[in-house]
Amino acid sequence: MSKKIITISRQFGSGGRTIGKKTAEKLGYEFYDKEIIEKVAEESGFEKKFIEEEGEYSPSKSIFAYSFVGRSINGMSANDYILSVQRKIILNIAEKGNCVIVGRCADYILKNRKDVLNIFVHADIAKRAERIVKLYGETDEKPEKRLTEKDKKRSINYKYYTDQIWGMAENYHLTLDSGVIGIDKCVDIIVDLSSGLD
Amino acid sequence: MSKKIITISRQFGSGGRTIGKKTAEKLGYEFYDKEIIEKVAEESGFEKKFIEEEGEYSPSKSIFAYSFVGRSINGMSANDYILSVQRKIILNIAEKGNCVIVGRCADYILKNRKDVLNIFVHADIAKRAERIVKLYGETDEKPEKRLTEKDKKRSINYKYYTDQIWGMAENYHLTLDSGVIGIDKCVDIIVDLSSGLD
Repeated sequence: MSKKIITISRQFGSGGRTIGKKTAEKLGYEFYDKEIIEKVAEESGFEKKFIEEEGEYSPSKSIFAYSFVGRSINGMSANDYILSVQRKIILNIAEKGNCVIVGRCADYILKNRKDVLNIFVHADIAKRAERIVKLYGETDEKPEKRLTEKDKKRSINYKYYTDQIWGMAENYHLTLDSGVIGIDKCVDIIVDLSSGLD
Repeated sequence: MSKKIITISRQFGSGGRTIGKKTAEKLGYEFYDKEIIEKVAEESGFEKKFIEEEGEYSPSKSIFAYSFVGRSINGMSANDYILSVQRKIILNIAEKGNCVIVGRCADYILKNRKDVLNIFVHADIAKRAERIVKLYGETDEKPEKRLTEKDKKRSINYKYYTDQIWGMAENYHLTLDSGVIGIDKCVDIIVDLSSGLD
């Protein structure tokens, strides 16, 4: 049985999203990244920007989070409600199979399935800094600071949701240093693995 | 430039040593595992059993460690002295190039070289338990307990020596779940990578 579902977790700026997209194209799989946010927005009624923060960066300190403090839905905090909707959507996506899902603790949410290949992509901070400046431009904040803050939030979110440590090798079947291995070679390894495993 | 040095760190029972050995055979590289212990024994005058404990499992509580408590060599504890000899030997081995080195914080010791590929191999505890019983037989202690204790010691040793967290993806260029990927496929990926990278 080949792996029908590939989850990609990634350090900010590591090119993990691009690797996921190219992998999906090569395998003819569906690709889910921002699409999940749209689905969660549709189902929950929350704004996309808020979902993006809460779905990967909670417990966040964004102004969006503050504006919903105290709001309770089905006995849950806004934060937990969004995570529960996101979880349901990811489980539904997985049911259809043949897909690549980026971020959002999908590795943990799908941990009981045998047809999932969990990947983590990272790179050293200098290479990631170069990449985000090239992709998103300069800001007032130094790129290294932007990277550290995003990763810190993803890490806290992952810990909160999974009680596991983000980026620990044992949570993934394969982890790749995209800075040394290169984006295209990472794609080749994942494509090859996903079709060749029992 | 291909990667002339491959370091393999591994959870106990994951088959990391076997993967290293097979990789070395395929690439025509030298293979260093127990050979390092022999070299450290020769240079330091300590017994092999003591070095094995201190070189990967220190600060350990073995009877061997206790028997050397308080002994000082060149102003260092026995433990630190062994680690320093081990470090020098690993740096010398690396100078010759074309080698696979298993364990002993070689990834950290060689971190300033550009021609090194750092690998971490792991597998879930059930698969590793099955493997160690097959390889080393049953003991009075449950295999899961043996695994947890060995890994705990390796983790403490790595933290002591490197101030990094053992098994964090970002310390390695590639990490592999040998239980899911399989020993031979792990070897293929490493062989392919080591010869194809800049």
